[in-house]
Amino acid sequence: MRISIIGASGYAGGELIRELLSHPEVEITNVVSRSHVDEYVFRIHPNLRGYTELKFSPLNLSSITSNSDLVFTSVPHGTSTEIVPKLLSTGIKVIDLGADFRLKDPADYPRWYGWTHSHPELLTEAVYGLPELHREKIRKAKLVACPGCMATATILALAPPIKEQIIEPERIVVDAKIGSSGAGNVPTKSSHHPERASGVRPYKTIGHRHIAEMEQELSLLTNIRPRISFSPHAVPIIRGILATVHTFTKKELELPELWKMYRSMYGKEPFVRLIRDRKGLHQLPDPKVTTGSNFCDIGFELDPHINRLVILSAIDNLVKGASGQAVQCLNIMLGIDEKTGIPGPTIYPV
Amino acid sequence: MRISIIGASGYAGGELIRELLSHPEVEITNVVSRSHVDEYVFRIHPNLRGYTELKFSPLNLSSITSNSDLVFTSVPHGTSTEIVPKLLSTGIKVIDLGADFRLKDPADYPRWYGWTHSHPELLTEAVYGLPELHREKIRKAKLVACPGCMATATILALAPPIKEQIIEPERIVVDAKIGSSGAGNVPTKSSHHPERASGVRPYKTIGHRHIAEMEQELSLLTNIRPRISFSPHAVPIIRGILATVHTFTKKELELPELWKMYRSMYGKEPFVRLIRDRKGLHQLPDPKVTTGSNFCDIGFELDPHINRLVILSAIDNLVKGASGQAVQCLNIMLGIDEKTGIPGPTIYPV
Amino acid sequence: MRISIIGASGYAGGELIRELLSHPEVEITNVVSRSHVDEYVFRIHPNLRGYTELKFSPLNLSSITSNSDLVFTSVPHGTSTEIVPKLLSTGIKVIDLGADFRLKDPADYPRWYGWTHSHPELLTEAVYGLPELHREKIRKAKLVACPGCMATATILALAPPIKEQIIEPERIVVDAKIGSSGAGNVPTKSSHHPERASGVRPYKTIGHRHIAEMEQELSLLTNIRPRISFSPHAVPIIRGILATVHTFTKKELELPELWKMYRSMYGKEPFVRLIRDRKGLHQLPDPKVTTGSNFCDIGFELDPHINRLVILSAIDNLVKGASGQAVQCLNIMLGIDEKTGIPGPTIYPV
Amino acid sequence: MRISIIGASGYAGGELIRELLSHPEVEITNVVSRSHVDEYVFRIHPNLRGYTELKFSPLNLSSITSNSDLVFTSVPHGTSTEIVPKLLSTGIKVIDLGADFRLKDPADYPRWYGWTHSHPELLTEAVYGLPELHREKIRKAKLVACPGCMATATILALAPPIKEQIIEPERIVVDAKIGSSGAGNVPTKSSHHPERASGVRPYKTIGHRHIAEMEQELSLLTNIRPRISFSPHAVPIIRGILATVHTFTKKELELPELWKMYRSMYGKEPFVRLIRDRKGLHQLPDPKVTTGSNFCDIGFELDPHINRLVILSAIDNLVKGASGQAVQCLNIMLGIDEKTGIPGPTIYPV
Repeated sequence: MRISIIGASGYAGGELIRELLSHPEVEITNVVSRSHVDEYVFRIHPNLRGYTELKFSPLNLSSITSNSDLVFTSVPHGTSTEIVPKLLSTGIKVIDLGADFRLKDPADYPRWYGWTHSHPELLTEAVYGLPELHREKIRKAKLVACPGCMATATILALAPPIKEQIIEPERIVVDAKIGSSGAGNVPTKSSHHPERASGVRPYKTIGHRHIAEMEQELSLLTNIRPRISFSPHAVPIIRGILATVHTFTKKELELPELWKMYRSMYGKEPFVRLIRDRKGLHQLPDPKVTTGSNFCDIGFELDPHINRLVILSAIDNLVKGASGQAVQCLNIMLGIDEKTGIPGPTIYPV
Repeated sequence: MRISIIGASGYAGGELIRELLSHPEVEITNVVSRSHVDEYVFRIHPNLRGYTELKFSPLNLSSITSNSDLVFTSVPHGTSTEIVPKLLSTGIKVIDLGADFRLKDPADYPRWYGWTHSHPELLTEAVYGLPELHREKIRKAKLVACPGCMATATILALAPPIKEQIIEPERIVVDAKIGSSGAGNVPTKSSHHPERASGVRPYKTIGHRHIAEMEQELSLLTNIRPRISFSPHAVPIIRGILATVHTFTKKELELPELWKMYRSMYGKEPFVRLIRDRKGLHQLPDPKVTTGSNFCDIGFELDPHINRLVILSAIDNLVKGASGQAVQCLNIMLGIDEKTGIPGPTIYPV
Repeated sequence: MRISIIGASGYAGGELIRELLSHPEVEITNVVSRSHVDEYVFRIHPNLRGYTELKFSPLNLSSITSNSDLVFTSVPHGTSTEIVPKLLSTGIKVIDLGADFRLKDPADYPRWYGWTHSHPELLTEAVYGLPELHREKIRKAKLVACPGCMATATILALAPPIKEQIIEPERIVVDAKIGSSGAGNVPTKSSHHPERASGVRPYKTIGHRHIAEMEQELSLLTNIRPRISFSPHAVPIIRGILATVHTFTKKELELPELWKMYRSMYGKEPFVRLIRDRKGLHQLPDPKVTTGSNFCDIGFELDPHINRLVILSAIDNLVKGASGQAVQCLNIMLGIDEKTGIPGPTIYPV
Repeated sequence: MRISIIGASGYAGGELIRELLSHPEVEITNVVSRSHVDEYVFRIHPNLRGYTELKFSPLNLSSITSNSDLVFTSVPHGTSTEIVPKLLSTGIKVIDLGADFRLKDPADYPRWYGWTHSHPELLTEAVYGLPELHREKIRKAKLVACPGCMATATILALAPPIKEQIIEPERIVVDAKIGSSGAGNVPTKSSHHPERASGVRPYKTIGHRHIAEMEQELSLLTNIRPRISFSPHAVPIIRGILATVHTFTKKELELPELWKMYRSMYGKEPFVRLIRDRKGLHQLPDPKVTTGSNFCDIGFELDPHINRLVILSAIDNLVKGASGQAVQCLNIMLGIDEKTGIPGPTIYPV
């Protein structure tokens, strides 16, 4: 399968290239970056030196459509709405890593993103690319909208208890901690090393955009719309998200019941690990352990003090939160083993 | 005033020495460390090289009582119960940095700490050393029990809304992030650099001991006992705590009402700063900014999505969370300016 | 091929398991750890959860020899001398990751390590496992002694100019910077996060043991024994070594001459990359870029100010500095592609 | 004394404000920042919140000269040459933190900085602001040019052995490690957290500009011009420089001789500490220990393997490498205790 990547110079783009280079069913035909035309890919993604002589090319849609079967788009929010319809109209399939096709209700774009969607008809067609919830639809999709990284960690943590309706739907606190790669590769004051290192900075404490997709997707599991109280924090790690999800159970629960719910939903999932150990340093999920992998590690605790169920969910924001999830969707569309091209055991400690 | 420090080789002990060295009303007569007898203090606390030629001495109570007016005890939990009564019996005042005299109800010790208190009669006498709540009692105290670092950040964040009874008392989530110095200076697997750096590790997700003192102190503000849903996380910073406190208001609130509550409680406090800016990188508290200072920085956001009030509270765990608070208590007991001996503007970025 | 690993619970052991799990020619039959008998491997190496159900076994040589063709030993210095001869005597091949068989001259053990070698006869037989220098010997070896991590980075940097005799052999300064995983997984004061983070600590400024093998190996390239002025520094990264090698050229040189020397020696090496770019952030080697890979990245600068040749050499201490190099040696012994089982493009940024 | 700071929004400027706020002999009359006019200082330097209500003002020289006795200039290289002559012409004294007046030979500016100096006559008048070498000249100076941070650490390390002519003057390797605050507060790709954290990046491996002032100042100690082989590395700490100085002694030396040289030069210096311990974690200098202080910590080792003398020199680049040194110079000019306004014991660990 011939694949192009539009927006290939960002961190998620780099990871996508890395994964696709070792994917046996794929040939990369174009890696597009408007700001790095004609540069070697390894100059921007230095880990790929020695693995590819690819160079970045400009955004030329006719050239891309002539030699691609599927295109990954990894471009700033609001940019995909222009590119994707043109690609789809030539019969090319698209996996979009941005937010432009994630929300079903066109009204959510002005509300959460501040702009009006120019192709609302595509919102129905697009499939939300979370395999654990939408595998069958992804299989047949022409347009996959990959979830936001924060949304991936949160939705996977909450899906079982929401589906089973065991928690109060309006008292769900998601306190997230995220690494610096999550903000992309453009230097800003907030990513400046002297400012970012050694601190824990709350940001978007209210009103974060991923809330829209979290509530949308979790609503589909029942007919009650939960309210997500979501607040992220910038922590001094490069990769990874830990979502600590504090919920309150409607009645007393025992751990075996929880295990059963989570196993029933994720027992056969290739990229969800349930983590709950009684010994050692790694008793609950930590994004350190998912670095470089496509796993979402999920664990939980029951607090008898107040019927609280705390769920911990850890991912690598650039893999399960972006590129790895995208390749997982690709594999589903191709009808092959979902793990194809996705790295196996990753390094530790890192 | 002649001062001794028992347990002077730990991180809190080192900070205490540092502050007392520049305190004009104080002479340090003994710095006790059983494991470092006769070593220069600066060998263990290398920042003090060039400032003091003090050496650690063994724990010899008669020698200490002979030349001390007040003793700081900074020893492992359960150890102070043996030392403190003896000191008090000679008329010496004590400021204890551990947990042994923080809880009022003797039953709380077996429940939260797993041991029975051998001197329950002192629990009534001891004053909980949080100046913002108990300044008058501290002034006259013979025994001050300084709060835990997590408790300090949490109680100061919650006191105004709890006192005003504007939040649901059973849906209070405190999600804390803490630096590695909080666990002391003894190397363990969890503090091993390859394991601690680049990760975000949940621990004591339920049942953390500081919950006992948080609920005790917040109960005193009204006659309702709130339930604190507290979960800390080890983050890869050395110093600092950020407590993110998620609460739900009983009715809709406006920001000016909140400002008024917080200003009314803390407007004259020398070591509480209210942080809420609309510009720049530092719009809400970040423990990075309190490093080395005795400030508790408090800020808040109102989430109209679901009547959530998020309070952010940042401290340096070794200063406002330990040594600085202890010196603040000392100054109150001495009747002098509370800022005496406590460092002024601290460095940034760090 | 049936493989056992003795000393499998350390960081290098964990990496070895990870690589061998995806090695198509290998079956792991025993993973030995005396301190973790019967524990799941993934409890200690949490990245391997979901990839293996292996458990650690005790050190039982007869059990190991009954089902192994080759054994990796990764045990504390001085321990291999007891185990390895027994393994060899049963016809099993050994790849040792420690220092016990690296030095040729038995007198070097008391001098540099402080103990007398109990099997000096094996020192002649052992092959120093640096493929770039000893590939042919490794192919036929029964006992391979993998180089120290610092030695790997240093020797590879210096081999071309030493061989060409263009630098002063007694004015070679190697200033190394190493991550915390280099000291192993046992917590110590020096690896305690509050002590290790945010610092740059010189240690073993003189007399580091790896000097012995550096000088031994570099001497073999000419008949002059160079003197290595080696000083390492503990820096707050987890993985990686940067060796900055300052040398002085005997006469003026031009860059093309240097390129020619390095290309001539390493042009066909699968795991050496020559890094010298004129643009971007990655103009010279940085261990950040080799994290998780088996590459040694080498670059250089010529300083016309004083005829100085600075060589930069970066590796991942746990991969090219330990496990990856060991698997590369294994592949050479097996006569298969040297890259087999060694991870391809690794993640960035990390 | 009325003081103004031009260039007060940078990191060195922030530290300068912090120190001067607690300086009893000083009143700050203007803090100039063209990019932050009318903003509160504490919005940019958040540590100062609660300590000052100062606001940044525009660069208005007549306003500055009307209410200042002395001006600190902390502006980009090449900018001071325009401002300083105007200030001096009104009788105001100037302490410049940049490079514009450090070099004595006008020809060094085109050579090392690429521009021609517009006021070469001031180069003779300017005093190089390193108190340990030029205290008497500083006392009477009208214009002080504070040393570069790398130069401060290097010159102080090398002055004693250069003065005593015990080392080879053309084989001096200075391998420096520097924190991210050294590059200022403007975000760039190289300071972007995902790129800077977890790496060790060589930069300016040859030709660093501070070499000019190092060689100039060290030449003054004898009549031989030493050649400094200087290469810095960006390490993932925020503050601090460690200069590892590798030199070769002309003849065999003993440690007591070295102690004598260093004590003779620095024995009475208020801000030089000689560090050489046989026990504990802090046997040699580490910039971690100087964080926030004005100390230059110096230690050394003699390597009998090859007559190498290794000198370690650690400073806080923003204090002894910039603001603290500047205030030390101010105090010398004022004829008061050099420690006035310079923070006492600083925090540890940090």
